[in-house]
Amino acid sequence: MKDVNCIFCKIANGDIPSATLYEDDDFRVILDLGPATKGHALILPKEHFANLFEIPEELETRAFALAKKMAGKMKDALGCDGFNIVQNNGIAAGQTVFHFHIHLIPRYDHDEAGISWKPGTLTEEAKEEILSKMRAN
Amino acid sequence: MKDVNCIFCKIANGDIPSATLYEDDDFRVILDLGPATKGHALILPKEHFANLFEIPEELETRAFALAKKMAGKMKDALGCDGFNIVQNNGIAAGQTVFHFHIHLIPRYDHDEAGISWKPGTLTEEAKEEILSKMRAN
Repeated sequence: MKDVNCIFCKIANGDIPSATLYEDDDFRVILDLGPATKGHALILPKEHFANLFEIPEELETRAFALAKKMAGKMKDALGCDGFNIVQNNGIAAGQTVFHFHIHLIPRYDHDEAGISWKPGTLTEEAKEEILSKMRAN
Repeated sequence: MKDVNCIFCKIANGDIPSATLYEDDDFRVILDLGPATKGHALILPKEHFANLFEIPEELETRAFALAKKMAGKMKDALGCDGFNIVQNNGIAAGQTVFHFHIHLIPRYDHDEAGISWKPGTLTEEAKEEILSKMRAN
């Protein structure tokens, strides 16, 4: 299934040109037009799924197998010092295009890309609440 | 293989207690002690691999299949509005414990957890350089 209003469907299927690093029957890997760092790329499935909750497990695991392969190749080619794999779901999580995608972000010492968070504290109260809710589901 | 100096080996294998959301023969999922948001959890393989480059593909894909399953359960249990999957490799990428792990980060509207980046611009020059380096590898 494609979504005719989805820009990532058009890019993944070649209807809109992109800087393509890799392509097979199911995926296209492109350079992000708004990169966090040099080499920031996206894995796009050719079929349309809005997010991690919608994509079938079989395709999802192949997408992350491809993420590992691409990260290895990109590390060798670009000589980066580290690597983030990021996959966002929902506006609250920073997802801006609602077609499942995986961010491949090469990192360089002192690149100031951010992609971190301020650690909070796991209180006993929060811990018990979360464990209890997870047991109930 | 375990690494006797690795705290995540000890936690994953139950030698150090943790708030465990899930456990099977190969993985343990625990609450992060320095959570970005309520419910922030980590998937830890019980075997020691430093990062995405070292972990075998078969185990890596099962870890990300588990990430999808856990994200679904956590979304239902915690009622979050979004979800980030983050996997960091190397100091430059914010990895602090050198035992492969996947961050499961529930997101809530206006939670101010960050986990984003300032988009740059993909210049023609950078694009050609990256494509050329990737073709050469």
